[in-house]
Amino acid sequence: TINADRLWSTIIETARFGGTEKGGVRRLTLSEEDRQVRDWFRAACEAAGCTVTVDGLGNMFALRPGKDMTKPPLGIGSHLDTQPTGGKFDGVLGVMAALEVVRTLNDAGIETETPICVCNWTNEEGSRFAPAMMGSAGYVADLPVSDILARTDADGISVGAALDAIGYRGPEEVGAQKFSGFLELHIEQGPILEAEGLPIGVVEHGQGIIWYDGRISGFESHTGSTPMHLRKDALAALSEIVLAIEALAKAHGPNAVGSVGEAVIARPSRNVIPGEIAFSGEFRTPDAGILDALDKALQAQVKEIAARRKVDIRLDTIWRKEPTHFDAAMTGAIAAAADRLGLSHRPIVSGAGHDSFHLATVVPTAMVFVPCKDGVSHNELESAKPEECAAGANVLLHAVLAVAGG
Amino acid sequence: TINADRLWSTIIETARFGGTEKGGVRRLTLSEEDRQVRDWFRAACEAAGCTVTVDGLGNMFALRPGKDMTKPPLGIGSHLDTQPTGGKFDGVLGVMAALEVVRTLNDAGIETETPICVCNWTNEEGSRFAPAMMGSAGYVADLPVSDILARTDADGISVGAALDAIGYRGPEEVGAQKFSGFLELHIEQGPILEAEGLPIGVVEHGQGIIWYDGRISGFESHTGSTPMHLRKDALAALSEIVLAIEALAKAHGPNAVGSVGEAVIARPSRNVIPGEIAFSGEFRTPDAGILDALDKALQAQVKEIAARRKVDIRLDTIWRKEPTHFDAAMTGAIAAAADRLGLSHRPIVSGAGHDSFHLATVVPTAMVFVPCKDGVSHNELESAKPEECAAGANVLLHAVLAVAGG
Ligand SMILES: NC(=O)NCCC(=O)O
Ligand SMILES: NC(=O)NCCC(=O)O
Repeated sequence: TINADRLWSTIIETARFGGTEKGGVRRLTLSEEDRQVRDWFRAACEAAGCTVTVDGLGNMFALRPGKDMTKPPLGIGSHLDTQPTGGKFDGVLGVMAALEVVRTLNDAGIETETPICVCNWTNEEGSRFAPAMMGSAGYVADLPVSDILARTDADGISVGAALDAIGYRGPEEVGAQKFSGFLELHIEQGPILEAEGLPIGVVEHGQGIIWYDGRISGFESHTGSTPMHLRKDALAALSEIVLAIEALAKAHGPNAVGSVGEAVIARPSRNVIPGEIAFSGEFRTPDAGILDALDKALQAQVKEIAARRKVDIRLDTIWRKEPTHFDAAMTGAIAAAADRLGLSHRPIVSGAGHDSFHLATVVPTAMVFVPCKDGVSHNELESAKPEECAAGANVLLHAVLAVAGG
Repeated sequence: TINADRLWSTIIETARFGGTEKGGVRRLTLSEEDRQVRDWFRAACEAAGCTVTVDGLGNMFALRPGKDMTKPPLGIGSHLDTQPTGGKFDGVLGVMAALEVVRTLNDAGIETETPICVCNWTNEEGSRFAPAMMGSAGYVADLPVSDILARTDADGISVGAALDAIGYRGPEEVGAQKFSGFLELHIEQGPILEAEGLPIGVVEHGQGIIWYDGRISGFESHTGSTPMHLRKDALAALSEIVLAIEALAKAHGPNAVGSVGEAVIARPSRNVIPGEIAFSGEFRTPDAGILDALDKALQAQVKEIAARRKVDIRLDTIWRKEPTHFDAAMTGAIAAAADRLGLSHRPIVSGAGHDSFHLATVVPTAMVFVPCKDGVSHNELESAKPEECAAGANVLLHAVLAVAGG
């Protein structure tokens, strides 16, 4: 079994890179804080005997040799970037547990048959640059590398420039590092395992995702002297869209969700009717047919709202990720590892997106979930107990041993 | 009659202070641009033979002597500050027309019985600092001067500090400059005069106003993995409030209006459910009873929304201005002046707030409206024709002669 204290201390130690007053982490992808944690990760992997390479999107690969070097390694890991006000576990647990697996194998003097590769994927969060899971999207060629490098953040800085700024545009060709399979440990980020008192979730599916960028153009005018029937109020139009997305998701429940995360009024003033608003929105559901239906219904409602309110509304689909179905042999290995350790488990659907969704399109892939407090994530209050993290890391270790042979 | 070309050229000349690319003006109160236009105004008034004083709130008074210096002067004027993306006429026309009245009297060698005082009131717009009509509120002691000086903008800069920064905290005691009456020319900022093809509106009433500051506290969590029924989405709650304000105003129409002008999500991210939003809102109607009813209904709906959505909502009334009823003798003088000039007119209610609302609580006061293009104001596209401005200034001149005696 892994060293639970050592695992926990790496989580706490790295949480200082971008650590916030409320105990959370603000470590936006390709920021100075991201550089710091990347430097730490590289040094820790090299100290554990791995060879670290970086590809042209900043994805980091730490290779631990195996007996059969003709086999592509088994990839394990997750991401080290966080939300603007994120927690200490989302992504971090998966990377630190993968490092802990390597350290444990070193301590035990175990050489696996298949090599092992600890991964840190660039921009999983999708908050600074859209879409999410960007580094792994480039890795599996879901998006062209040139397209990714040109994406910009709110300040107009491109992914390429941000990589250069922190010195993490690596020489390795994107996609050149092959894997024989991929395993990722993550907190659930939802309430199910905690509610059912289960330490382990075996992730069998991942939700499909649609992301929208929207812009509403009404007309700025005086809030006091413009009669109600002559207004083109962009905020009132947005309000209808927000409630429409919510109602559509609820109507297709229990497994559909939808929300608007960002909305910015241009040139706001108390006594000016909002004339222009930019916003982002999304739907998620494990069922591709429902994703289609939600999208179609929203587009129709937006058209109706625009016509009735005489405002212009652009609603662009900037990302669509089809639902993910993980590999049965890999999920079986995870369930068997949990059984061997006496940890009860259940199959589960991932509500959040993960790099494993992309990896699953090219190699046998699966994920392990552990509970987190109140199901809360993307919040500085995100929390998981040391023993919960250790349980997940042990399942990862035993699944790795089963898959890589040791 | 006034010199229409000279009036127009002062409007165009001063529009360069804060002039925008789209032909509008961005001259927030007590900004550097406001200092520039204030310096211009002081110099122009002095060149026209007036003595300029400034009070402790930056209100500017340019006194033209009359035959009977024991009488307090007749105040005329408006304000020179603008919205963040305002036009060239809102406020400016009233000040420039008042200056033009003085210049015309000078050219004609007319000394009025009652002295005349051209006024530029501080922060009429209420966009940088709330509430609106702030300088005149201090003048009539509707708000204590010390309270006004302590109000802060979004950057935490106080009114007092902003006055000092541009050198316009004057030595005159606020309220010391007395008036025998007050007259203000303004663009209508609404569509009625244009629609009816009338050059002049005689403003008989002003709408009552309630301004709110609100804050919604929900809970930030993951947009993908948080089930719909466990969300505390601050943006969805705001959306209901925006639509409630709109529906309440419409239900109490045709003379009630309501809207939300500002809304800012704290720490926004695409895949984080908005946890905290600050917003501003308002209702206006000429009927105090309806203003009460709107306020009461909104407070009840907000309570219901907060309880149902399990979010905290604070809704603070930061300003309430009762409906204004202008002086019959003063409105009569305006109507008579228009008749004398052969300009058709109608009584009208002011949708927007004006410094005259405050002056009306202490001296006989009235306002002249002229049409503006499409009724549009608080927009860079705000527009009025030279001949429309001149017609209003001529009515102001003749009303001044009637009231001040000349
Ligand atoms: N796991 C996780 O929080 N991913 C962020 C990307 C998303 O699901 O929106
Ligand atoms: N006249 C005018 O636009 N006043 C601004 C204050 C307000 O009515 O909101």
